[in-house]
Amino acid sequence: MMSNLQTFIETNLPHIELQLESIINDITAPHELKEAMLYSLKAGGKRIRPLYTLAVLQELGVENVEAIKVASTIEMIHTYSLIHDDLPSMDNDDLRRGKPTNHKVFGEALAILAGDALVTLAFGIIARLKDLEPSQKVRLIDELSMASGAEGMVGGQVLDMLGEGKRLSLEELEEVHLNKTGALLSYSILAGGIIANANEDIMKALHQYSIHIGLAFQIQDDILDVEGTSEQLGKTAGKDILSEKNTYPSILTLAGAKEQLQKQYNLAIEALHPVTLNKGLLVELADYITKRSK
Amino acid sequence: MMSNLQTFIETNLPHIELQLESIINDITAPHELKEAMLYSLKAGGKRIRPLYTLAVLQELGVENVEAIKVASTIEMIHTYSLIHDDLPSMDNDDLRRGKPTNHKVFGEALAILAGDALVTLAFGIIARLKDLEPSQKVRLIDELSMASGAEGMVGGQVLDMLGEGKRLSLEELEEVHLNKTGALLSYSILAGGIIANANEDIMKALHQYSIHIGLAFQIQDDILDVEGTSEQLGKTAGKDILSEKNTYPSILTLAGAKEQLQKQYNLAIEALHPVTLNKGLLVELADYITKRSK
Repeated sequence: MMSNLQTFIETNLPHIELQLESIINDITAPHELKEAMLYSLKAGGKRIRPLYTLAVLQELGVENVEAIKVASTIEMIHTYSLIHDDLPSMDNDDLRRGKPTNHKVFGEALAILAGDALVTLAFGIIARLKDLEPSQKVRLIDELSMASGAEGMVGGQVLDMLGEGKRLSLEELEEVHLNKTGALLSYSILAGGIIANANEDIMKALHQYSIHIGLAFQIQDDILDVEGTSEQLGKTAGKDILSEKNTYPSILTLAGAKEQLQKQYNLAIEALHPVTLNKGLLVELADYITKRSK
Repeated sequence: MMSNLQTFIETNLPHIELQLESIINDITAPHELKEAMLYSLKAGGKRIRPLYTLAVLQELGVENVEAIKVASTIEMIHTYSLIHDDLPSMDNDDLRRGKPTNHKVFGEALAILAGDALVTLAFGIIARLKDLEPSQKVRLIDELSMASGAEGMVGGQVLDMLGEGKRLSLEELEEVHLNKTGALLSYSILAGGIIANANEDIMKALHQYSIHIGLAFQIQDDILDVEGTSEQLGKTAGKDILSEKNTYPSILTLAGAKEQLQKQYNLAIEALHPVTLNKGLLVELADYITKRSK
């Protein structure tokens, strides 16, 4: 029997894939640029962020035909960050999800510009939605800018760079990840609440849940880098150790990292206790994130 | 006697400079990142785009204390584009406005991230304004995304790259510049109209004016690259010829480029004829753009 989550993913994933494609197809721009944007957008991935936005909406019992567009803009921001992170002057990665990275295929200049185009387009798509109030769109843009910019993802990326070669404390490592990966993941959950006009109690609970889920996600990423194979991961396993990155296993030992993962999982689930909403998908997604093998 | 424009610039420029500084000071982010963002934001420049936004507003007789913030976000987007354009994989420039370029001072990785942070923050600042209606903010964001992304500035940058080493027609060169520099300059003029809630006739006239001003600006840039000195320009003169860039002088001869400049100037001024608004500053700015020596 398929789980609730499996059905949900099988229903929604094809729509997300189509939406990403049509967003790029619909713009008027040099085809070389569109190709570079689409290449990384369509390079696969779990689509965990857009799925979260849609899952929250479903559990709040709200339907909105444009939610899929909001969900897709988050994947666009995530993708742009990967393109830029992979550049030679950054992580210098040749492979991403088992495929050559964007700059390996299109060259550095076009890779930088494809990233720039994705982040810029994401904000425009939200602004141009028809089925949301202007105030909702403004709130989405405000939160997305915060989550993905200097005070979120980009700031976390800088902290991560600055921390390389140094030994960070657990608190410092959390600070990196709350920003680098946590902020955008958290936004993807809150975005569902904003689209649904959820009340402040629910927004607070979702926010707490999202913080712990973001950390759990990163801890499992670090654990997989130690325990997974390159084939499973679609990228070079063991790279964190080689590049002397600060990770949960390197700071806490592997057993300690697994304990921390369980702790963050529990805190995420507890955060949902005070509010009444369907929690099935949110619990299943938390399970999926902490138990995934890639 | 000082011209109207001189008084206007001397009054507004210090506010723009202060605003740019306080926008960066006000964010919570790693200080290395803030430093890199601020370095390029404060590296000088004519501030022609924010001045245009404020000039339009003044000529429409509308005061809005937050217009300066909108104006500043345009300079942030312009600055991010310069940081990325100067990168080794793009134009590979060591000097910008007489100072070492961002990546020369902070390294490529931080330069890329400083650019990313600037563009992302720009959208957030508009979303967080208090004195504009949500619908005005959404319109500003919509237009800004269009002007600065794949369908505008970034797309133009790609066209420019693809055109290097090829001989473009005048139409193809115009297509590059309408996007690469024209779209954002045009937005800076329209933004004043959006903030002022100008009627559609005025918006149309401003739009026409802005298109021709954008082209005039670029033609004069190309002419200065031939006629100016590196000292005047704060960047290497004659670089366009060396790198075999398509320019107005290379396609039309220097005399032909000057004729084209005059034509675009005339079209810009004519575009304002059908509407009644104070045009003094807009005419003076057009004069300034076509006659500037840097």
